[in-house]
Amino acid sequence: IADDNGEALEALLKEYHFADIAELLEELDTDEATYIVKLLDSEVTSEILIELDDDLRESILDNLTPSEIADELDEMDTDDAADIIAELDDDIQKQVIGHIEDTTHAADIVDLLRYDEDTAGGLMAKELVSVKESWTVAGCVREMRRQAENVTRVHSIYVTDKEGRLKGRLSLKDLLTAHQRAHISEVYIPKVDYVTVHTEANEVARIMQKYDLEAIPVVDDEGILVGRITIDDILDYVKEEAERDYQMAAGISQDVEASDGLFKQTKARLPWLMIGMMGGLGAATIISNFEVILSTYPKLLIFVPLIQATAGNVGVQSSAIIVQGLANDSLKGHLFARIVRETTVALVNGISIAIIVLFISHFIFYTSYLESLSIGVALITVIILAAIVGNLIPIFLHRRGIDPAVATGPFITTSNDVFGIFTYFLIAKLILGF
Amino acid sequence: IADDNGEALEALLKEYHFADIAELLEELDTDEATYIVKLLDSEVTSEILIELDDDLRESILDNLTPSEIADELDEMDTDDAADIIAELDDDIQKQVIGHIEDTTHAADIVDLLRYDEDTAGGLMAKELVSVKESWTVAGCVREMRRQAENVTRVHSIYVTDKEGRLKGRLSLKDLLTAHQRAHISEVYIPKVDYVTVHTEANEVARIMQKYDLEAIPVVDDEGILVGRITIDDILDYVKEEAERDYQMAAGISQDVEASDGLFKQTKARLPWLMIGMMGGLGAATIISNFEVILSTYPKLLIFVPLIQATAGNVGVQSSAIIVQGLANDSLKGHLFARIVRETTVALVNGISIAIIVLFISHFIFYTSYLESLSIGVALITVIILAAIVGNLIPIFLHRRGIDPAVATGPFITTSNDVFGIFTYFLIAKLILGF
Repeated sequence: IADDNGEALEALLKEYHFADIAELLEELDTDEATYIVKLLDSEVTSEILIELDDDLRESILDNLTPSEIADELDEMDTDDAADIIAELDDDIQKQVIGHIEDTTHAADIVDLLRYDEDTAGGLMAKELVSVKESWTVAGCVREMRRQAENVTRVHSIYVTDKEGRLKGRLSLKDLLTAHQRAHISEVYIPKVDYVTVHTEANEVARIMQKYDLEAIPVVDDEGILVGRITIDDILDYVKEEAERDYQMAAGISQDVEASDGLFKQTKARLPWLMIGMMGGLGAATIISNFEVILSTYPKLLIFVPLIQATAGNVGVQSSAIIVQGLANDSLKGHLFARIVRETTVALVNGISIAIIVLFISHFIFYTSYLESLSIGVALITVIILAAIVGNLIPIFLHRRGIDPAVATGPFITTSNDVFGIFTYFLIAKLILGF
Repeated sequence: IADDNGEALEALLKEYHFADIAELLEELDTDEATYIVKLLDSEVTSEILIELDDDLRESILDNLTPSEIADELDEMDTDDAADIIAELDDDIQKQVIGHIEDTTHAADIVDLLRYDEDTAGGLMAKELVSVKESWTVAGCVREMRRQAENVTRVHSIYVTDKEGRLKGRLSLKDLLTAHQRAHISEVYIPKVDYVTVHTEANEVARIMQKYDLEAIPVVDDEGILVGRITIDDILDYVKEEAERDYQMAAGISQDVEASDGLFKQTKARLPWLMIGMMGGLGAATIISNFEVILSTYPKLLIFVPLIQATAGNVGVQSSAIIVQGLANDSLKGHLFARIVRETTVALVNGISIAIIVLFISHFIFYTSYLESLSIGVALITVIILAAIVGNLIPIFLHRRGIDPAVATGPFITTSNDVFGIFTYFLIAKLILGF
């Protein structure tokens, strides 16, 4: 379709929603996609660019001149524009900003670039409707009509004092029913949830979900209203976070898709496999150090995979529960109490599994009583230890300021594998007395 | 606090937001929580009940009479009321519905109960603002004021024909700027995204995210407007789904928290550990069947944990990428092409790891050339097979209509463990020729 004249194509694409065009572009190669972006009106393409996959967007932007990029950014909301500009190289950033026609818009974007992307400042948009408490309702409606042009959706009208400090909010409904000559200060709702520019994105999401907010105002350190965050940005954030945690738990670094190329896939996956490999080699070292087992009790080796799998599974279960508890801020009670409960659960699980394995090992694999006993005791011990380790590691990382989600996945599986096998042989050594 | 007279407590709690009271109640025991719910006004407590954890809500509702529950439901939006009523026993459900004062409200709730909770019908609320295309703007504003009383937030005004079939939408802004005597049919936007009551929740979330919608109308099979879904419900849904997938990948059944009791924790975790145990016993059977290895090539056993860990990690990585691709509907291209790419990635990873292990095994663990070769070839083969299996299982489950997320976690790890060890010994047998 994309190889000859543009007019027919332009007419055809006009019928489609920008999100659908974005999906279509993902199927094309960079040159074709760039061609279409240049062809269409920047009002549409700015929306398309926001929807595109990071990689594709980057390569399309590489093909555009700074002034063409500036045209796109002119049409975007400040938050989206700031996100996209942040992806560019420093010197191109400056050129692009210089080309943005609307200088207030440009200044707003530059302002947003200062904030860390995982804070309220990084999520917020400058577009909002605000009124001063000293205004009258009639003046306010006039002013609002003007402001609302830049704002796609009016969720709430924020009320500030003369210096711009957030005082409260006003609903459209209140405004419509209030007396025309009343002052805003008489009709506004002084209670309003807000966050500061430094509030972590995580916390913003929690607050908005808890209070079912569709938008939340953001203030700076002086309490001055500087932006607002809308629920659709939070939805995107929550989804990205969830995917990231899921990928981390599966031992893949962020942002890999089934369709990505060989290099990207290898880069994302090989490091974790290397960690697993080190664990495997560690386990090999442990086994070869208990040489007597190899010669005298070869049957114990049969159960190494069982011990390893159990240790890994228990560790992942425990850590996943803690990681989720930390993410939802729902961990209650003392650490000690939790460890006690976790140990009890592990004990019950451990005994259940040990009993089954005890019978099977003795009657099917003909292990001696002492060998069976070693396996059973080792299973219980390994399950308890793996549960405690699975509990403590995420909490420890969290306290150190590291994302506890890294603790799940290959990292915890690997350490539990090695640890579990070591415990197994140690217990066998104690019971069998070699 | 909760042991003596209520008035002081009531005055105190009035100051708090319902979501904060809900958090407070989670800290109390059932009797105290029930006491507070009975104490406060149903306008507040209905909101509190919605926020509560399922377990606590259930036990509080057990302590309330059907007519008390009905009072609470009277204050709720239809979607929340339907969700809560669905948790009750059948006979209590009927009694409660009989006690709801507002009969239209009751009928709406009963209507919602018909839908599966994972469809648009199960997510939607009956509360919405709709106008008929034949009305004038002035009449419409009057009617809207009346309808808007029952609707917490007006996102969009939906336009229907005389029979109630969805025709389009109208923004508040358009309505305010339109001529008073114009007909709705002249000013409304005939293009509107919608879903049917049978659309899967998953798909609803995808559409709303793709088009950045804050609310979407729901129609029945005849195209008649029957409800709407708002973005905050979708946010809750997306979050719950993500948590469920994460827990499944970690081998925990749904809805377990760190604070849950022994029985619930064991029930959620033991079954998965049993699957791991079966895998471990399967591996034990395989090892003991390759008896020669135990006696002649004991060094090969040292590397069993390495093979097992690698097979598990690769399988989890591959399946996680596919599960996410399926969830986001972003799997493109042919299955065969994907398998080829996956195999190439696996080959690169496999060769990298095999080379390292080859050197280490030979120079540190003093394995013979043929033993080292067996280990290296087995590693590459196992990585490729695990990658292919990790790819195919989720796709197979998805095609069978089973949630592919179950394929990650212990299930895939376990099968890859057993499969990997078997492959390892088979290759060793071929190369060493025993």
